[in-house]
Amino acid sequence: MPANRQILLDNRPQGEATANNFKLVTTDTPALADGQVLVKHHYLSLDPYMRGRMNDSKSYAASQPLGEVMIGGTVGEVVESKHPKYQAGDQVVGMGGWQEYSVVDANQPGALRKVDTTHVPLSYYLGAVGMPGVTAWYGLVRIIEPKEGETVVISAATGAVGSAFAALAKARGCRVVGIAGGPDKCKYAVEELGYDACIDYRQHKDMYSLAKALKEVAPKGIDGYFENVGGMILDAVLLRINAFGRIAVCGMIAGYDGQPLPLANPALILINRLKVQGFIVSEHMEDWPQALTELGTLVAQGKLRPRETISQGIESAPEAFLGLLKGKNFGKQLVKLI
Amino acid sequence: MPANRQILLDNRPQGEATANNFKLVTTDTPALADGQVLVKHHYLSLDPYMRGRMNDSKSYAASQPLGEVMIGGTVGEVVESKHPKYQAGDQVVGMGGWQEYSVVDANQPGALRKVDTTHVPLSYYLGAVGMPGVTAWYGLVRIIEPKEGETVVISAATGAVGSAFAALAKARGCRVVGIAGGPDKCKYAVEELGYDACIDYRQHKDMYSLAKALKEVAPKGIDGYFENVGGMILDAVLLRINAFGRIAVCGMIAGYDGQPLPLANPALILINRLKVQGFIVSEHMEDWPQALTELGTLVAQGKLRPRETISQGIESAPEAFLGLLKGKNFGKQLVKLI
Repeated sequence: MPANRQILLDNRPQGEATANNFKLVTTDTPALADGQVLVKHHYLSLDPYMRGRMNDSKSYAASQPLGEVMIGGTVGEVVESKHPKYQAGDQVVGMGGWQEYSVVDANQPGALRKVDTTHVPLSYYLGAVGMPGVTAWYGLVRIIEPKEGETVVISAATGAVGSAFAALAKARGCRVVGIAGGPDKCKYAVEELGYDACIDYRQHKDMYSLAKALKEVAPKGIDGYFENVGGMILDAVLLRINAFGRIAVCGMIAGYDGQPLPLANPALILINRLKVQGFIVSEHMEDWPQALTELGTLVAQGKLRPRETISQGIESAPEAFLGLLKGKNFGKQLVKLI
Repeated sequence: MPANRQILLDNRPQGEATANNFKLVTTDTPALADGQVLVKHHYLSLDPYMRGRMNDSKSYAASQPLGEVMIGGTVGEVVESKHPKYQAGDQVVGMGGWQEYSVVDANQPGALRKVDTTHVPLSYYLGAVGMPGVTAWYGLVRIIEPKEGETVVISAATGAVGSAFAALAKARGCRVVGIAGGPDKCKYAVEELGYDACIDYRQHKDMYSLAKALKEVAPKGIDGYFENVGGMILDAVLLRINAFGRIAVCGMIAGYDGQPLPLANPALILINRLKVQGFIVSEHMEDWPQALTELGTLVAQGKLRPRETISQGIESAPEAFLGLLKGKNFGKQLVKLI
């Protein structure tokens, strides 16, 4: 059996996460039991939610156990199978974790999903046509519920979720405004992702300045907001949101390191009769087929062309992940493992 | 025509509202035109929302204009009518304002509503079987959507909204926990209003202490919360709320004077996948008939026995209102005008 390099969570962050929280080890892949499949990973997905799992505190999902392989989505190829539904050569999506191979009990519901790469590149099943894409779909379609002509806004606009959000919202006739860090990302948002406008939050030192910029690009106010960040951006959006606005809360990345991150004026929820709703896409599996169908179609039609930032080799995963948390990536952050 | 004593908004509060913001004047009631009705008010309702109207800032409703009669709900009796649908002696509910008489254009939809006092005392149409009761109904039924066996919590538990909320939630098989100010109110909440438990927030100096008290009386966590107050109480509830909890935001009385009132940890909205929704009951008139029917039935059955605090005479309204804002009232605050 092939040697398998793995990244474990070695210890929990004290404040900011560092490379020292992780440990690289090499193990042998075990012999397969009946019903198991050996998958060789081509790509590992890096996502902000992983930072939350590194903490021990109560969070929306189980903590990542110490000394075990970091959780993570993977795409790859079946290299050996003791399950009748899979054979060598099948391309599959799963939660293989930060390692080069995984042994999967294929009888476990949802553990593996075969995918077709005729119109959609394999790596996209970790991004636009995978969990991040469905995340954008759920927040937009199920929580924001946009009407044609409404204005919707998203933070972390050029990431994997943001790219899909822009295409989905444009398909529904919305004005779509992104918020991103830096002029390059904003240029990319408008020129390639289809945003009507994009604001560089780094140009704004407080919520009032950012709210003024929002007024210029969303002159009719904001009807829906997809929250990936929290902090000052949310405070600024609340100053420009319309009555009966909807806010889908998907991430509050700025708070993962444990700093207090208050909301400046929650009374605006009442004053504007807002609906503010948090969600985790993995709790809404019933919507995945519909969402994936729409996302795959947008990719096949060329209406969703997400960019990827790819680091090479499992050993590069920790630094790539820390860069993602600081916004250094451009589009979907992946680790190439072949 | 009778002389009519009125209370006008004379000037806007700078910070806390004071009696000097109001002015008492006496005018003559004008002769009626066709379609008009003269109502002699028996009771004036005092409600926290009026404080928001006194400000000039953007709020969820139009500001109260300076130099005009303060807005307010009233019940009374028709004393003269030039409208075929009304005659002298009819008992009616309306928005007559802080004055002894009002001239109402009875053709305006919703301006007046005749009520039956066979089973429900007239004053209750300003409280349990009026706007506050429907407010409790909407937040509970349409936003919290409780299931049997769930735990629901409300702040300002012994006020007009809270009294109705307790009866409506008990009727749905919930465990109902109140939060109120002082041991007398808490005793009343449990012994007369049907709460399973009531916490005196004045015994708690910070959100952690209050959250600990909530844990004792809501050992299975909180599934729904009806927010009348904001500030520390909301922060504490968020520490004890269950996954998929629902928060109906009806009031944030602690913030009306303009102090910043941040929410300590909005990331809990994501972590617990909460729905937080603001509402104003007057925007949901389609639900009033159903709500009023249920509330009237609960009163007739003796399952909803709200208490009233009644001050005498229109000249007493400003002080009674300022006391309401400080929580000095016990149950529904009314001004008796006859």
